[in-house]
Amino acid sequence: MQNKTNKSQNLPAQGRKPRGAGTRGKTAAPKSPAKRKGQAAKKLPPVTPVKVGFLGGLNEIGKNMTVYEYENDIVIVDCGLAFPDDDMLGIDLVIPDFTYIEKNADRVRGIVLTHGHEDHIGALPYLLSKFNIPVYGTRLTLGLVEGKLEEAGILEKCKLNVVNAGQAVGFGGITVEFIAVNHSIPDAVAFAIHTPAGVIIQTGDFKIDTNPISGDMIDLGRFAELGRQGVLCLLSDSTNATRPGYTQSERTVGESFNLLFQSPSAQNKRIIIATFASNIHRIQQIIDYACKYGRKVAVSGRSMINAVAISQELGYLNVPEGILIDISEIRRHPKDKLVIITTGSQGEPMSALARMASSDHRQVDVGPDDFIIISATPIPGNEKTVSNVVNELISHGCDVVYEKMYDVHVSGHACQEELKIMLGLCKPRYFIPVHGEQKHLRRHMGLARLMGIDANNIVLASIGDQYELSEEKLKKCPPIPAGRVMVDGLGVGDVGSIVLRDRKHLGQDGIIVVVAAIEGDTGMLVSGPEIVSRGFVYVREAEDMMEESRCLVRSTIEKCQNGKLNDWSVIKNRVRDDLSKMLYEKTKRSPMILPVILEV
Amino acid sequence: MQNKTNKSQNLPAQGRKPRGAGTRGKTAAPKSPAKRKGQAAKKLPPVTPVKVGFLGGLNEIGKNMTVYEYENDIVIVDCGLAFPDDDMLGIDLVIPDFTYIEKNADRVRGIVLTHGHEDHIGALPYLLSKFNIPVYGTRLTLGLVEGKLEEAGILEKCKLNVVNAGQAVGFGGITVEFIAVNHSIPDAVAFAIHTPAGVIIQTGDFKIDTNPISGDMIDLGRFAELGRQGVLCLLSDSTNATRPGYTQSERTVGESFNLLFQSPSAQNKRIIIATFASNIHRIQQIIDYACKYGRKVAVSGRSMINAVAISQELGYLNVPEGILIDISEIRRHPKDKLVIITTGSQGEPMSALARMASSDHRQVDVGPDDFIIISATPIPGNEKTVSNVVNELISHGCDVVYEKMYDVHVSGHACQEELKIMLGLCKPRYFIPVHGEQKHLRRHMGLARLMGIDANNIVLASIGDQYELSEEKLKKCPPIPAGRVMVDGLGVGDVGSIVLRDRKHLGQDGIIVVVAAIEGDTGMLVSGPEIVSRGFVYVREAEDMMEESRCLVRSTIEKCQNGKLNDWSVIKNRVRDDLSKMLYEKTKRSPMILPVILEV
Repeated sequence: MQNKTNKSQNLPAQGRKPRGAGTRGKTAAPKSPAKRKGQAAKKLPPVTPVKVGFLGGLNEIGKNMTVYEYENDIVIVDCGLAFPDDDMLGIDLVIPDFTYIEKNADRVRGIVLTHGHEDHIGALPYLLSKFNIPVYGTRLTLGLVEGKLEEAGILEKCKLNVVNAGQAVGFGGITVEFIAVNHSIPDAVAFAIHTPAGVIIQTGDFKIDTNPISGDMIDLGRFAELGRQGVLCLLSDSTNATRPGYTQSERTVGESFNLLFQSPSAQNKRIIIATFASNIHRIQQIIDYACKYGRKVAVSGRSMINAVAISQELGYLNVPEGILIDISEIRRHPKDKLVIITTGSQGEPMSALARMASSDHRQVDVGPDDFIIISATPIPGNEKTVSNVVNELISHGCDVVYEKMYDVHVSGHACQEELKIMLGLCKPRYFIPVHGEQKHLRRHMGLARLMGIDANNIVLASIGDQYELSEEKLKKCPPIPAGRVMVDGLGVGDVGSIVLRDRKHLGQDGIIVVVAAIEGDTGMLVSGPEIVSRGFVYVREAEDMMEESRCLVRSTIEKCQNGKLNDWSVIKNRVRDDLSKMLYEKTKRSPMILPVILEV
Repeated sequence: MQNKTNKSQNLPAQGRKPRGAGTRGKTAAPKSPAKRKGQAAKKLPPVTPVKVGFLGGLNEIGKNMTVYEYENDIVIVDCGLAFPDDDMLGIDLVIPDFTYIEKNADRVRGIVLTHGHEDHIGALPYLLSKFNIPVYGTRLTLGLVEGKLEEAGILEKCKLNVVNAGQAVGFGGITVEFIAVNHSIPDAVAFAIHTPAGVIIQTGDFKIDTNPISGDMIDLGRFAELGRQGVLCLLSDSTNATRPGYTQSERTVGESFNLLFQSPSAQNKRIIIATFASNIHRIQQIIDYACKYGRKVAVSGRSMINAVAISQELGYLNVPEGILIDISEIRRHPKDKLVIITTGSQGEPMSALARMASSDHRQVDVGPDDFIIISATPIPGNEKTVSNVVNELISHGCDVVYEKMYDVHVSGHACQEELKIMLGLCKPRYFIPVHGEQKHLRRHMGLARLMGIDANNIVLASIGDQYELSEEKLKKCPPIPAGRVMVDGLGVGDVGSIVLRDRKHLGQDGIIVVVAAIEGDTGMLVSGPEIVSRGFVYVREAEDMMEESRCLVRSTIEKCQNGKLNDWSVIKNRVRDDLSKMLYEKTKRSPMILPVILEV
């Protein structure tokens, strides 16, 4: 990793317990204007409230992006992408609307990143190619960001600054403190955002893992300390707010691996494990058990190869000498001395596991000698693709562990009891559940009420909302621009609702193009009409219908001509209406009809 | 229901224990050629084997259709449809390939139906509109079939014959005995298919419900009896073969309703319950608890209204006087005295519940006064649409019970222990798991081995497979035509892989139509090129690119003309290649390019 200036050291970082301009604690409460109102409040200038605005991550899982403002300073938390919905045909990915950033670019002091998942960093290349905002994150997070910026060709000009958990970075009136949390990727942090108006804690994605594979347990002590000092507002991860209890430790997955590696299913067989490329702790455990049971490890799938390389280089993955082999070398080793770690746990069509399933993988032919473990839960919407891959693998005679057959996956997000611990430690005045769909946000609100937070101080926010927060009050500001910007190839935002509607129509029913050449003066048909269709019907088997269509269009054009109709848009509409009606009667389908008239 | 001649009474029905031509039992085994081989076998003509062929229902959930043949007689079991996969754009539904039926139409004696679900009866109108095959089913099943045939305009000519569980129907060499089973629709049956070569049992969809809402418990005694007499082959429902234990009784759902109706969530609120229209037992329970708690019941959604009407008319639904009100009358009743039963439990976009969620329902405005219960589990692939509807309902302030929050749904299919009971009772010589994907079929095979069936006598079949079965051996025959026939509007089978590929391309990337008029003799461009795009880019914001495209095409055509190239297909290809290359470089997208050249 290219280690640029670590700004956090040049800035007024307050170390482990920042108490500078940004700190407001309950111990300091007697000095706050609110409490003094009765005495000498009028003499003190009122404290400027802090603003928090949402550009994504609410009522959706994805494109997390939150904007904090204090007077003239703006700090952005995360800049993620979302994957397109099923109805966004042809769209590669979705990013937040950056209009608000554009309007306030001169005030933006930096962007801080909670962790290296796509829904938190995936839109950064799009943001940074427009605005050269300094970026702050932990080492692994920036390692992953670097790869993206390099691919986008903008790494050289970007300012990346490594900050460690426990450190803080000052951005004028705002100081951001990095606090260690546990998650399904190493080096994840929460932020305590210190402003003169108070401290806001944004948890990022988190869980409580008392015994993580590497790194420390989430710094609950620091949350408690901030809570004692007084937290103005908590923004907390709602992903698992509908699940009772606690999320299990990542270590339980290792225990399952240990059992499965020794089980009869694995005897004399190659083991193939599909999981998320970014789950370095999971990969570490697979490597550890491979070592223990004398197996070599090969890695398949581009993102998995990248993740292993980066995390090994940065020291997040501990790989004993000689254990990793290239996928091209697997034939030199007996099958029962091999583990393959692969992408494709979500059944993604072009992923390595999907290619193995469809016998399209260059190095890996699967069969009855393979024991395959899908170490992941399908993300909602992917159930069917995962199931298809499982069925294909089973057809090859593979033994496959999938769904909830064994504890081969744990979530990276806090369940209800953990969320309540976070609420109980931070004791915030205001609470805003984030990172979730409506059902998650609402349930998280219920948990906050259970934990004694006043219902009036709990906010159900949407993207585009901005709130002004101070000890005295929470006020909703006028909305800020926010939405979904669709990325299709190189096009960012050039596909909108009209184009999508047309794509849907074309995809469902196909198109019929009607072309005719008409003499400009007389309106006489001089060539055509030609009728060409795509995606409507197999033309060789529908010659009659196509011929009938040609006759109909000719007669429509001639009628127009006899009626001295020379307005081409009117002629086109007539053609469209007549043909559409006839085809619907014959087929009960409504292809898009596109008449083109050439003037000769 | 229009009660046609009940052929089962005219035919040699053998009542409860058919033992005629079709019966072969272990008690009769000493007489079978196999056992006598050592003695006088050579003098007896060998018994013709029975054939079973699969036109659907294997490696898929849907379009169940099995064909039994004994000498010159064919009987079909079920004729279901499947819903299109995500990649079948614009397709309404999928039906089996009827080629094999067409080729053997003169030998087909009848079609027998296990129950009234779409995946077992949905393709009947397509089959019967081509071949007037007599249909045999229980009363409710035929009631549901009638509605479909009426809609297709062929009811008058169809021969529907009601058969009750316990009765049998003779079709020449084949006699089909109807045996009561439990399922998520009343009046479901299994078949014992009696032939001189032996008895084959096809379970249809089943579960064991010791205490069903109406009707009898599955006739386990009859399966046991057949098993004692000797069953040649068992074809059994594999849907839940991956689930351990037993499926719960439908009655447990009623118990949950009872609790929820009395819960604080329901106090002062309207209750809305979404479930499957065909689950008459569920609807009965909702009505029963509505009565108990003094609420009126209204029904919303076309299929729900139909199902309630048919099952009420045929006596499968017991509705006390005055309890049902029309949906248009709900405003006259206080909300806490109402229950609405609705379709949409799968989040189907146009369903009543989805319309309520998107505030598009004419009679029902949902809000904080509504307690909504989704009494169903998402069918794989529907998770996201269900979740979207839940989120929308929650946004309106509704209290929603969904997923596994309470026991408000049970499956209609047998789990592993029930499947083992069926195997244990029937003790078949051969076993073919049906009605499932690869993962279900394979697991069901494992259960059969556990139950002591010889691995060599267990068949993993695919659609298009046909087997010849006799006491002596099981032999695979040459494949029979089978596949997916796609229905789009009125078109049956006219959309094939080329049309689908084009639809996918159009849907993903849109289309660019290039039109030019060229003088026939000289090859001179006399009008155009015109460039029209749909689904590619919003043209008003891409004027430059469209103009550039026009220039490029003009130059390509002029080059051809200068090179004396007059072959239009070559010119079209050049235009396509040049334009495609330029657009990909500019946008990294590949719209379909459709050049049309008019000769003037």
